[in-house]
Amino acid sequence: MKIFKSKNNGILIVLSAPSGCGKTTVEKRLLNKVPRLKRSISYTTRQKRKGERNGKDYFFVTKEAFLKKRKERRFLEWAKVFGNYYGTPKDFVLNTIKGGHDILLTIDVQGAQKIKSKLKKGIYIFLLPPSLPILRKRLLKRKTDIKKEIHKRISQARVEIRAAFSYDYLVINDSVETAVDTIIEIINAEKHKITYNKEVLRGICSS
Amino acid sequence: MKIFKSKNNGILIVLSAPSGCGKTTVEKRLLNKVPRLKRSISYTTRQKRKGERNGKDYFFVTKEAFLKKRKERRFLEWAKVFGNYYGTPKDFVLNTIKGGHDILLTIDVQGAQKIKSKLKKGIYIFLLPPSLPILRKRLLKRKTDIKKEIHKRISQARVEIRAAFSYDYLVINDSVETAVDTIIEIINAEKHKITYNKEVLRGICSS
Repeated sequence: MKIFKSKNNGILIVLSAPSGCGKTTVEKRLLNKVPRLKRSISYTTRQKRKGERNGKDYFFVTKEAFLKKRKERRFLEWAKVFGNYYGTPKDFVLNTIKGGHDILLTIDVQGAQKIKSKLKKGIYIFLLPPSLPILRKRLLKRKTDIKKEIHKRISQARVEIRAAFSYDYLVINDSVETAVDTIIEIINAEKHKITYNKEVLRGICSS
Repeated sequence: MKIFKSKNNGILIVLSAPSGCGKTTVEKRLLNKVPRLKRSISYTTRQKRKGERNGKDYFFVTKEAFLKKRKERRFLEWAKVFGNYYGTPKDFVLNTIKGGHDILLTIDVQGAQKIKSKLKKGIYIFLLPPSLPILRKRLLKRKTDIKKEIHKRISQARVEIRAAFSYDYLVINDSVETAVDTIIEIINAEKHKITYNKEVLRGICSS
């Protein structure tokens, strides 16, 4: 399955999902399957974890550097979570799109809402588990979360799912392969939207 | 390539193209490849041509029968072309959608505009040749049209293409197979639109 090559601007693809939906696995598989698809790398002030690489997983910066960038309005959106800052780099995202490349932004629902208020064009995809009991099972399998934490995550998922109504597409992560192929189909279909092909249309009219 | 099966309502797919774009070939191939997809059959008062079957190609009716149906508002849209009436049956289209089946409506741009004003939900796809010189070549190959007629058709195509700006998707008919697969991708992607999955979302929320 290939991504249809467009001569026009790239497309912004925003992917959100409650915790435990397999968002990271889907993202990795998608980027693997579509090497042309770029991934937005966020800035963060949190400590680098084992195995994480600067400029690959995140840009790890000091609080001062982050706040300077924020002051200079270099973020499309930013948030403070558990005392750490996270920000989506504006220039990188916009230049990637202008350069004709599609860019994937995996972000929580609050971040997605902020992006949507700034960028009109984009595909907003919400990834969901087939049901909440299945999500609970998946979280239990991880074993890293204690029961109380799982209960909290399920409650949070319920709240987050409500935000899905403001997204464009819903993809059920029943199987990773199917979910990834569906996302590729969605991107391909979107590339045929008239809104991305006005120049092509004008070209044909005057051919 | 399969059409994703939805538990919800079917989707209305409206396909338009200027004459000579291979619309009929694409339609036939699409219906062949996706047997679940139904085709809307129009009513007409024109004479049945050789090879055409009543209830398959058109419902061939008398002028009186047509005008009676029109008076009873049984058409989603109707038009008079070269003295003959053509109409899209409202009940058949709406019942097919309600029954969970997708329905394909191949119709000219004027008809599509009338449908759009009545039915909010639907996928409006415009099929185009790669360029107008290629369209001219295709029309010349047919040999059924004299040169003057071809010139008229090209001019008409130019006018019709302008209407494409009010459609949702643009598909270039460079190869029939690719065009058909793109339309299938578009239908699949649309089925994941939040607007068609509100019930699914509510179901997951309360699971």
